[in-house]
Amino acid sequence: MQIPGGHELIAVGLIHSSLKQRADAPRQGNEGAPGARVEIDPAYVQCLDGLAPGDEIVLLTWFHEAQRDVLKVHPRNDPRNPLTGVFATRSPDRPNPIGLHRVTVLAIVDQRWLDVEPLEAIDGTPIIDIKPVLATSNDS
Amino acid sequence: MQIPGGHELIAVGLIHSSLKQRADAPRQGNEGAPGARVEIDPAYVQCLDGLAPGDEIVLLTWFHEAQRDVLKVHPRNDPRNPLTGVFATRSPDRPNPIGLHRVTVLAIVDQRWLDVEPLEAIDGTPIIDIKPVLATSNDS
Repeated sequence: MQIPGGHELIAVGLIHSSLKQRADAPRQGNEGAPGARVEIDPAYVQCLDGLAPGDEIVLLTWFHEAQRDVLKVHPRNDPRNPLTGVFATRSPDRPNPIGLHRVTVLAIVDQRWLDVEPLEAIDGTPIIDIKPVLATSNDS
Repeated sequence: MQIPGGHELIAVGLIHSSLKQRADAPRQGNEGAPGARVEIDPAYVQCLDGLAPGDEIVLLTWFHEAQRDVLKVHPRNDPRNPLTGVFATRSPDRPNPIGLHRVTVLAIVDQRWLDVEPLEAIDGTPIIDIKPVLATSNDS
């Protein structure tokens, strides 16, 4: 299947975190992940207008260290769990390794740094999109 | 900012819907969107193993008709709403036009067609990822 038009991703930001390697990272944000700082590319700082501390947002990341040819995994990397299609799991290894991270905005510094928590993605992970959590929570 | 390694998206599936144009589509799935059928590329059908009717999933789509150079919009396309950064809105026009759609799986037909509802994305929209909704709902 082809994607019509341009479909190359742009990094709109970057994660700065004390988590330096995949092995250090909890599997989900609510499993003891630390806070992190998100640096927004100056070209996209205008896109933040309207966000404020206290907001809940969904960060979309690109797991740049993921393997894109993995179709099935043992969930939570535990061999006792039967092999499962990656679309039925949150494995970072998948055809398009996009991560969804629901976080709270703690502070916005100099209009281009977002302090957020909790975030299980590692240092250096590119941010590809940011979305508000909708009150109806029907589409996140 | 650069994304290290490959960052070109793959279409893993395609939406078949009675919604043929952006003007026809409701703004969110819970605003009267119909059901739709998702066709999975045969190369990725294995990734579905473990999904079953009744499951809640998040479809990630690529809004192939979006404008990628839009940084601010009037929310809900209503000029009475002040210009707002796209990261504080769910506008399809954004640097990486990825859509998040929380839907229920109604049926899985021939192991490669997913009937889902509700879905506000238009006919022909590429699917780039599918994720289960987590019970903790902390990262969607």
